[in-house]
Formats: sequence, structure tokens, C-alpha cells
Amino acid sequence: MSKKPLILVTNDDGITAPGLRALIEVMNTIGEVVVVAPDSPQSAMGHAITINSTLHCEVHPTDGPQLEYSCSGTPADCVKLAVNEILGRKPDLCVSGINHGSNSSINVIYSGTMSAAVEAGIEGIPAIGFSLLDYRWGADFEVTKPFVEKITRSALKNKIPKDTVLNVNIPVLKSGIIKGIKICRQAKAYWVEEFDKRTNPMGREYYWLTGNFINEDRGEDTDEWALEQGYISIVPVQFDLTAHHTIQQLNTWDFD
Amino acid sequence: MSKKPLILVTNDDGITAPGLRALIEVMNTIGEVVVVAPDSPQSAMGHAITINSTLHCEVHPTDGPQLEYSCSGTPADCVKLAVNEILGRKPDLCVSGINHGSNSSINVIYSGTMSAAVEAGIEGIPAIGFSLLDYRWGADFEVTKPFVEKITRSALKNKIPKDTVLNVNIPVLKSGIIKGIKICRQAKAYWVEEFDKRTNPMGREYYWLTGNFINEDRGEDTDEWALEQGYISIVPVQFDLTAHHTIQQLNTWDFD
Repeated sequence: MSKKPLILVTNDDGITAPGLRALIEVMNTIGEVVVVAPDSPQSAMGHAITINSTLHCEVHPTDGPQLEYSCSGTPADCVKLAVNEILGRKPDLCVSGINHGSNSSINVIYSGTMSAAVEAGIEGIPAIGFSLLDYRWGADFEVTKPFVEKITRSALKNKIPKDTVLNVNIPVLKSGIIKGIKICRQAKAYWVEEFDKRTNPMGREYYWLTGNFINEDRGEDTDEWALEQGYISIVPVQFDLTAHHTIQQLNTWDFD
Repeated sequence: MSKKPLILVTNDDGITAPGLRALIEVMNTIGEVVVVAPDSPQSAMGHAITINSTLHCEVHPTDGPQLEYSCSGTPADCVKLAVNEILGRKPDLCVSGINHGSNSSINVIYSGTMSAAVEAGIEGIPAIGFSLLDYRWGADFEVTKPFVEKITRSALKNKIPKDTVLNVNIPVLKSGIIKGIKICRQAKAYWVEEFDKRTNPMGREYYWLTGNFINEDRGEDTDEWALEQGYISIVPVQFDLTAHHTIQQLNTWDFD
């Protein structure tokens, strides 16, 4: 019998999040699980790391066979700490999530969930970020579990391509019936911000950041399209950010 | 005579940073300048945005013709606030920096400086991030100024390719003589973390994140190579993170 894979589980909603608990439950059926997750919510942290303050990490009470640690840092910090201080070796897989809310299209840039997966990818660890399109704390993760398991087992069997991490988004459907899984590209979408300007009791103005999501990308190969049609989207994400196709054009510029 | 371009200046080291002051000085020779920068250092913030707490923004005393505002948020927040609440229109250019320290190769992922430029890029604003390979507060930015000016003027004249922002890194040379400017790809490099574990006066353990930068990419078209040779590197950076080249392979996976 083959040895069980060592799976690092993390997220950005914090160690008590229901989405993390659902992910742990699935991973316990696949491998040996160690959880290293933020001790407080770290949504929209992008790929932040903690370099100007200190990090704490504590053993957290577990509710299953997995070991658990809570850390004071960002999702990317959690991965760094896990690999270097807790596991003592690179895990066979890192999974992040299940996020309460979408990380499709441009949201990948702001996502703490995906930053943890990308950090693992940079360190050469196969990695997947999972997100459910329901931001509520009470979101129902039950329907996601068989799909999270299928995708994870397939990734372990087929091997995730080098220098790539998977960004998995799961739709919420009235019917509850997910049509299937589609490999997609990131839709070209963006947020139009709206700042909600208020005045505090001391008379000082402050803002809440809100916004509207605009998707003008009508391609039928995008994550947004797949999700709208009732499919789970998987976008392969890379961390070589070079816009290689523009280099030739930039080489024609004269800097004198 | 053509109207002066409206230039938004921001950074991640905070509004008092000498690198920001150097950038403002150069931009004042090129356009009409508005500064919207964090009120405290925001290094290594990645593409974090503030959604679970409030944002403040205040007029900051200016030392020149530019208008200045300091904000409580991240670099990406500053760009969002500037465009939506302060400028009332999209600027003709957004420049970020000059960062105290490198944002070459994989550092682009963690960089607050570049997250501001990328945020502007997402909003359709031409954008450049500038970094000097000297993390000290007292770093000498004098030698960088003519190059920052040349690159900015060239970008305004030639137009930065669509959905691309420029990541400019400037070497520190003993001779002080920069050899020139090279268009590069992001070197495939990474950090090997070392956590400096300590015990606080109350007996609780904590960590400082440190690490060693490892570049095993020997390509002579990379930013690391150019910088080592004494050139300024310019990497065109994109925010479509899709690893398009892996989609065909992923489509062969069986999820049942």
C-alpha cells in the first residue's frame, strides 16, 4: 500500500472558518493532514507577508485526526511557517480554502486564499485554492465536498503542471446540481470602486471601500462564463508575471 | 502647446520616504503631480486591499507644486481612493516608488510598490513601478533621477502596451555609472526562508521572517542578469495570471 500524502491545509478566513472545516474533512479522506491557518480573518490580503513585525504560532485544538496550528500572520506567512518550522519538510500538496466568496477572474489578485496557494507553488509544492461563491459565514459547503475530493485526487494522480497552481471556484446553484468542471482562463473583469464616505462621532471623515464587479469579457472559455453556466471553474495560475508578448514592442523604445 | 499630463504618485514606504520625494521631484518636471501615499510604511503588502476596516485620507503638507494626500490604507487602496475620491478622473500616468529595495524577479509578487502600479493598470491607467536596489532610508536616489525621467517620458511617448505595467529596477553601482536600460523577463528565483525564533520577556515564542534569495535562472534575458551587469531592468508585468500554456494538458484530466 502506498503511503498517504502529507497535505498542508490553510485559508484566509481564519482557523475557525466553516469553509476550512469542510476542506479538512475532505482532506482527511485523502491524506495525512496538517492545518496551519491564520488566527484571524485575512481576506483581501493579496500576497502580503510579515517582515516588519513578529509572528506567533500556537497549537490549536483539533476536532479530528489532523494536527492544527494557528498563526498571527498572513496566509503566505502560514505557508512559509508550515514548511520551514512545523512540517520540517515540503508537503505533497497544499490546499487553501474553502474560501467564503469568489476568487474568480481579477479577484485572484486580491485573494489571500490564492496567495497561500501561490506561495506554496513558488516553493515547488503542488497547490490548489478552493472558493465557493457564497461569502456568508453560514454558507453550505456540503455540495462542494465531492467535487473538492475529485479535483484533489485528480491533481495528485495527474500532477499539476510545473510553476502552476490551480484556482478552483465553485458556483452556488438553486438546483444544487453542478453541471461539471471546466478548465478556464481568467476572465478580463474589474471592479468599479465606490467609496462610502461617512463621518465618525468625532467629526472625522472616513471611507468604506465597496464596488461593483464589471465583466465585459464575453469569451466562453473564461471562469466567469463557466460559473454562470453552473460549472466549477479551474484556472491554472502562474507566478511568472512577465508579459512576454510585449517584450518585442518594448525593445523598439528609445530611452534617449 | 500640449497640456501637461496628470501624474498620480504613490509608493509603499509611506509619504515621508526619501524615495517618494525623489520621484515627486522628477515628475514635477514632466506633469501636474498629485501624491496619494500611505501614511505609514506598507512594504511587502502584496496586493492587499482594505475591506474589513475603514480608510482615512488627509491633506498632507506639500514642499512643492504638487498636491499631497496621506491615506491609512495599502498602496492599492491609495490608487483606488485617488482615482475615485481625489482626482475625480483617471490620471494620464501612475508612478509608484521609488522603492527602497529591489522588486526584481519573484519580489514583484510581494511588492506593495508594484501592487499600486498593477492596481492602476487594472483600472486602465498607464503605470510604472520604480525600485532602487538599496533598502536603506538614506539610500542615494540622485543617480536614479535622469533614468526615471527618461523612462517616464519614453512611456508617455510610446504608450505602455495594454494590460501591462512596467516594473523598473535600478542597480546600485560602486562606479555610479549605469550601463543602460534592458527590457527583461522576470528571473525564476525564490526565497529560502529562515525563521529567527526568539522568546519574549513573558516566555512566549515568536518569529522574525528572514531568508536568502536564490536565483538559479542563468538566462541572460532576465532582470537579475541585467541588474548584475549594471543595467536598469524593465519587466513588463501582466495581471492575467492564467498559465495559458497548461490548459491543453489540464483538459486531459479525468475528474471521475
